[in-house]
Amino acid sequence: MKSRAAVAFGPGKPLEIVEIDVAPPQKGEVLVRITHTGVCHTDAFTLSGDDPEGIFPAVLGHEGGGIVVEVGEGVTSLKPGDHVIPLYTAECRACKFCLSGKTNLCQAVRATQGKGLMPDGTTRFSYNGEPIYHYMGCSTFSEYTVVPEISLAVINPEAPLEKVCLLGCGVTTGIGAVHNTAKVQEGDTVAIFGLGGIGLAAIQGAVQAKAGRIIAIDTNPNKFILAQAMGATDCINPKDHERPIQEVIVEMTDGGVDFSFECIGNVDVMRAALECCHKGWGESVIIGVAGAGQEIRTRPFQLVTGRVWRGSAFGGVKGRTQLPGMVEQSMKGEIDLDPFITHTMPLEQINEAFDLMHEGKSIRTVIHY
Amino acid sequence: MKSRAAVAFGPGKPLEIVEIDVAPPQKGEVLVRITHTGVCHTDAFTLSGDDPEGIFPAVLGHEGGGIVVEVGEGVTSLKPGDHVIPLYTAECRACKFCLSGKTNLCQAVRATQGKGLMPDGTTRFSYNGEPIYHYMGCSTFSEYTVVPEISLAVINPEAPLEKVCLLGCGVTTGIGAVHNTAKVQEGDTVAIFGLGGIGLAAIQGAVQAKAGRIIAIDTNPNKFILAQAMGATDCINPKDHERPIQEVIVEMTDGGVDFSFECIGNVDVMRAALECCHKGWGESVIIGVAGAGQEIRTRPFQLVTGRVWRGSAFGGVKGRTQLPGMVEQSMKGEIDLDPFITHTMPLEQINEAFDLMHEGKSIRTVIHY
Repeated sequence: MKSRAAVAFGPGKPLEIVEIDVAPPQKGEVLVRITHTGVCHTDAFTLSGDDPEGIFPAVLGHEGGGIVVEVGEGVTSLKPGDHVIPLYTAECRACKFCLSGKTNLCQAVRATQGKGLMPDGTTRFSYNGEPIYHYMGCSTFSEYTVVPEISLAVINPEAPLEKVCLLGCGVTTGIGAVHNTAKVQEGDTVAIFGLGGIGLAAIQGAVQAKAGRIIAIDTNPNKFILAQAMGATDCINPKDHERPIQEVIVEMTDGGVDFSFECIGNVDVMRAALECCHKGWGESVIIGVAGAGQEIRTRPFQLVTGRVWRGSAFGGVKGRTQLPGMVEQSMKGEIDLDPFITHTMPLEQINEAFDLMHEGKSIRTVIHY
Repeated sequence: MKSRAAVAFGPGKPLEIVEIDVAPPQKGEVLVRITHTGVCHTDAFTLSGDDPEGIFPAVLGHEGGGIVVEVGEGVTSLKPGDHVIPLYTAECRACKFCLSGKTNLCQAVRATQGKGLMPDGTTRFSYNGEPIYHYMGCSTFSEYTVVPEISLAVINPEAPLEKVCLLGCGVTTGIGAVHNTAKVQEGDTVAIFGLGGIGLAAIQGAVQAKAGRIIAIDTNPNKFILAQAMGATDCINPKDHERPIQEVIVEMTDGGVDFSFECIGNVDVMRAALECCHKGWGESVIIGVAGAGQEIRTRPFQLVTGRVWRGSAFGGVKGRTQLPGMVEQSMKGEIDLDPFITHTMPLEQINEAFDLMHEGKSIRTVIHY
């Protein structure tokens, strides 16, 4: 079938709005009509060409919501009409990782997903007869997309897809890291580095967890208004201090924070986030994605004296199991998605969404078809 | 009073056996007659001059056992005749750290201890009228030493001090890291890097925890015999492989180990120990102490994909609370101290103990007075 799509034909080029061909879903696959999609920094990172694993031409987009149109052979957990959020972290419930009970990093479709292909090693997208690759197993920048059954969370059909699509990536990542990875408890002191969508979501998670003090750090003080509105108790701009920011935070917290979150992808900030943790028990969670080849570093003494260095992907959330509940939470107001949505626009304007993001003017732009 | 002691008069010089003066214990302090002491790599590190916090002249030694001779004002938890193990990690049971329930890193005497002084800021040792500094709050290379009350574990008087002195550092550090820091569970796969005293103790801890597979790694294959006797299931020499050792271990374990322990103090090995952990849940514990200014590094992707980087000091053991029980375990044979003791000699020969250690010929030499 034909589908309107924003195609990334090559690194560093604007997306082109074209009509592509979408093949029917194969065994274990599902055809989804995407109604809305967010535009995330990871899409921009891949489009820029800096992502060493980026593949072109491709249909980007991984933060979407939609409705099942057709299911392939053997698909039993979904039916046409179901409302879904595509998952870039699948949940097969059968692999060593899913069965471990220790991680959300299902590996069932990882290898092919990383190559821009469906699990059978082929693509469902083409343009003028030439193959177009999938992206992160989602490709939500096409009105119609094909996704593995195990990469779809079925959600309440009454949930507003124009909002809950954001639970497909950034908001879930930030909130989930607080609850699933760090396990913040009532009264804990937390530091959140970077006040983009993930950082703001981490603030929401910390408020839910009843953290006693929520310190928000960003070099752009314009972001402090929203951070405070969401629940940050302290806002710090590293540019206002001559000392390393970790020293400032250790001093203002009488020894350091219980938990810190790096929501940027900057390896120097990752170090500061670790080193602002309290001796003896402070834990730092890396959420941001660093550039290719970059490395984190610190003195091992930081760890020997009791700090812990962790990371989190998709907030440690098992998508099919946990995402439906997070959608319910958003419908009850326990997760507030409205502040994240600074812009909405039709697919045809998607390149403007990237421009707004690069200029730091948006948190999330939601694209509608 | 007079006391025979091995004094480190300066970096890089042999210890000198002299008779020093030991002042009486002050408020909250205890005079202990040391009967036995191990010689640990940390003593050698400080003696070498590479330890940036090393202070001279000093009475080194921190792995001892002895008998209380006299208590200072206000000391209530100890009495003359009690058998004790000095603790370089005190346990005051009153500071923020002790009360947190999250760490063994009591800070009550840390500042003065780091300066080679008693909590009141003075030293009890002198030689020819000149002050001699304390070391790690223990100074077990003197027959008589003065230690804060909160830095002494009272143990079963029937325990053999010539053996249980080793629980003052290395053995407890290795075993404790497995149980308290990593919390290894039955069936887990573990990798232990470095088969000195701490690494061998970590093997014992892993055996106690019923680890399913215990992989021992060292570049000196002579150490494999003892490692296997203690319970290692696999022994690997990185020199036998052209690939990085972490790749070898990931392959032989179908994805990596559940827990790894770095027992050397080499930052490159610390990286290998992290990277041989299983994606999704593997945790690496740094036990070894690196040289001044050295840094650990890795790609943050290692953490974002679920590995955890920790450290451990004194095995996470709260000395006054937990060490008496470990002494009991050693008396029941649940901890086997015999294999660690490769040499014994009188204080007068202590420099030979350092030589044996430097030459890799000893695990522990126990010095008797």
